[in-house]
Amino acid sequence: MTSMVQLALEEVRTLADRVLTGAGYSGDHARAISEMLYACQLDDCQSHGLFRLFMCRETMQAGKIDGHVLPELQPSQNAVVRVDAKGAMSLLAVETAMPVLIEKARRFGMAAMAVNNCYHFSALWPEVEQLSAAGLAGLSMVPSHAWVAPAGGTRGTLGTNPLAFSWPRRGKSPFTFDFATSAFARGEIELYLRAGKPLPDGVAVDADGKPTNDPQEALSGAMLTFGGYKGSALSIMIELLAGPLIDDLTSKESLRFADGKGGAPYHGQILLAFDPAHLSCGRVEANDSRAERLFADILDQGARLPSQRRFEARKRNLARGYVEIPATLHRDLHALQD
Amino acid sequence: MTSMVQLALEEVRTLADRVLTGAGYSGDHARAISEMLYACQLDDCQSHGLFRLFMCRETMQAGKIDGHVLPELQPSQNAVVRVDAKGAMSLLAVETAMPVLIEKARRFGMAAMAVNNCYHFSALWPEVEQLSAAGLAGLSMVPSHAWVAPAGGTRGTLGTNPLAFSWPRRGKSPFTFDFATSAFARGEIELYLRAGKPLPDGVAVDADGKPTNDPQEALSGAMLTFGGYKGSALSIMIELLAGPLIDDLTSKESLRFADGKGGAPYHGQILLAFDPAHLSCGRVEANDSRAERLFADILDQGARLPSQRRFEARKRNLARGYVEIPATLHRDLHALQD
Repeated sequence: MTSMVQLALEEVRTLADRVLTGAGYSGDHARAISEMLYACQLDDCQSHGLFRLFMCRETMQAGKIDGHVLPELQPSQNAVVRVDAKGAMSLLAVETAMPVLIEKARRFGMAAMAVNNCYHFSALWPEVEQLSAAGLAGLSMVPSHAWVAPAGGTRGTLGTNPLAFSWPRRGKSPFTFDFATSAFARGEIELYLRAGKPLPDGVAVDADGKPTNDPQEALSGAMLTFGGYKGSALSIMIELLAGPLIDDLTSKESLRFADGKGGAPYHGQILLAFDPAHLSCGRVEANDSRAERLFADILDQGARLPSQRRFEARKRNLARGYVEIPATLHRDLHALQD
Repeated sequence: MTSMVQLALEEVRTLADRVLTGAGYSGDHARAISEMLYACQLDDCQSHGLFRLFMCRETMQAGKIDGHVLPELQPSQNAVVRVDAKGAMSLLAVETAMPVLIEKARRFGMAAMAVNNCYHFSALWPEVEQLSAAGLAGLSMVPSHAWVAPAGGTRGTLGTNPLAFSWPRRGKSPFTFDFATSAFARGEIELYLRAGKPLPDGVAVDADGKPTNDPQEALSGAMLTFGGYKGSALSIMIELLAGPLIDDLTSKESLRFADGKGGAPYHGQILLAFDPAHLSCGRVEANDSRAERLFADILDQGARLPSQRRFEARKRNLARGYVEIPATLHRDLHALQD
């Protein structure tokens, strides 16, 4: 059992902020990043919470990121808002363009945000949940590093390419999912390696493209997508929509750009927003009830909706005013500040 | 080995047309449906080609479809084109709205088509390939009948909910996929039943919600989604985007509407179109090359792109001027006309 330490909610942001500004991020960037880490930590999502501060530092140490440059919004009269992160982390860019995306979705019925030239390390659900909080349905996709083989392939070409979606529910937590299109997250394989456990079948191939259950061989070989050829096709779609469609890098180009230096991958991001008021011809209430009957039918048979555990953690942590983080993480983060 | 019969290309359309008008479809509807069946038959897609004429007849015999009513395009100034099929088959409605979708995607950068109140039986790829033929990236989703259990569930709530995507490639067949989010297509389970073969694991549950390998028990129980909880989440997203978002039925409502009468499911359809010229800020050529490097890297390692078999069949059948259909199908279709 991991020993846990309590951290007051406000302390999560302050701690993150101190580490980030200490690492070389400007106040604006540190605040936008801390906000994301806070959202994840509040939901007990340890893998994408304060733990990611190490990656933020590594990214700075790799020497290419700009910790101070401000994102540039490119004005348009159409349904696409484009924001150039100019070689900084993605989060401030997305935050800057988010109100424009929401306004455009309401004006045009649907809209897209194209984020270019950004480092990206974060969960996608806090961003699509900003869209559902505004009454819109939101979708987001990013490439990553070419660690994942296509179906029938033997080497890394695709990223872990996550897909996140959120649907607004009145007076309730939204319907949200955010999953990697790889069978396992890369971090999960690292956990198996540390625990000395064999991987399940269908997760990875070795450097020769042969199926493997050895986590070390998997890390030097390639991961596989979830769901066989269908998951693979979906992952290729994400490469295209969050890469060439928006004039940004594929996972293979992103891996080459990193040049073995570590830190967060560098690429683009696409977010889509759909306005139910437009698309349902104003019959939002009737269609909300229809969606609720769908959710009820899923829950009635003992199945769960995605993200339920996150929402329960959020409620609990907000009520008690603190989160719990592993004692080792707490110690390592404090060591960073000395 | 199934015995096959050669059918001249033009005969595919004529045969379909005769059966459809004989069954009670107007000339316009028969032509639009025949066009879809021709596209599938040309690609040797037997499951969605002329074979579907039986379902078109059954749908008419179920007594609710209107075989003559024309779709109604609803004008808008935004990025959404809405077309009401008014209780007819989807295909004429989609055909009518397609030029508007293309025009809107070029004007706004991206656009959506919402098709309402339609019967739907067809493959999705011929429609998204019309978008890629116009230089756009296209996505399409539909619900179906509630035959599929959500992850962790025991009974049918979701449809087979297919997802189709097409990406334009200059001078080449597009990158296209079109797959059901159920582990198996319903027709596949029927084939296992007829062949007396047990289903693989993870395809279905019986009427009590227990895993089963028996095709008959699967048909009276529920199918499962591909890819576990991720495939299930994706299928729920498709229910929402192609249902409540556009003011149309979920798969459960569609099954209830059918009232055990058979024929094609009745519901809505959503198509999305993305203009690479807008979204890449005009750098289409450089990004086409980037996408081509991605495809080359997949093919170089011996993996296949989706739809390759279809494109090979299309080329072969166009060159020789005929398609091959099972002799039994040919006989049964001719019997319909007597």
